[in-house]
Amino acid sequence: MEDCVFCDIVAGKASASMVYEDETVCSFLTIGPVNPGHLLVIPKQHKSSLSDLDEETGMHLFKVTMQMAKALRHSDLQCEGVNLFLADGEAAFQDVFHVHMHVFPRFQGDQFKVDANWEIKPSRQELDEIAERIRRAQGIRT
Amino acid sequence: MEDCVFCDIVAGKASASMVYEDETVCSFLTIGPVNPGHLLVIPKQHKSSLSDLDEETGMHLFKVTMQMAKALRHSDLQCEGVNLFLADGEAAFQDVFHVHMHVFPRFQGDQFKVDANWEIKPSRQELDEIAERIRRAQGIRT
Repeated sequence: MEDCVFCDIVAGKASASMVYEDETVCSFLTIGPVNPGHLLVIPKQHKSSLSDLDEETGMHLFKVTMQMAKALRHSDLQCEGVNLFLADGEAAFQDVFHVHMHVFPRFQGDQFKVDANWEIKPSRQELDEIAERIRRAQGIRT
Repeated sequence: MEDCVFCDIVAGKASASMVYEDETVCSFLTIGPVNPGHLLVIPKQHKSSLSDLDEETGMHLFKVTMQMAKALRHSDLQCEGVNLFLADGEAAFQDVFHVHMHVFPRFQGDQFKVDANWEIKPSRQELDEIAERIRRAQGIRT
């Protein structure tokens, strides 16, 4: 894929501080961390969105993600928690259009925050109706 | 596990708007959504933290997570993006201590936000040093 910084990293054309690498996925430190130790785990093959990723590769990517979370927990960074975050689509804050799972260490009192309109409290009937709409969409193939 | 609301849901003792269920994992709508359609995917067995989850179950949980993301994308909720989010540990905003992956639809202009101190721009040398510290911690078993 041309003009993809993650493909350039995989190809060795761009530098990265690599933590893990195998045949299908790799993990390296992002240059824009929320905290020191903020890792990305990516498939080596270019996949722009989650729906382009086959399940087998996705499952392997998650296995490595779990291992990276464990490594952060056991490292001398002394983190107190870990977040996983994946942004799929521009509306979901995806910036680089090559699938990447964020794995970042957390520390009490750090500056990472999430916010939303927490006032929304749907009724059970509303939840059941939405569940039905999502269930109907299951099994649809791209 | 006593006093775990997710275990109660799995056991049928608490109500939930279920979207998917199999032998080892299930997915239902959270009662505190950031957007309508906000799902959780959980292992049925009580696992308080990510490091308690065996890799096989984790991989299956992620396969179902991918399927839930696809269902949201194909549903008539007409979402424009999807986020995955997992909080492991109190410092990482974990609230219910039963592993759960958030899968939520995103819409342009919705109110979900993430924030951090984006000013941190580590040098390549700093990144390489941190990568080395994380690599050293790989392979350590609990």
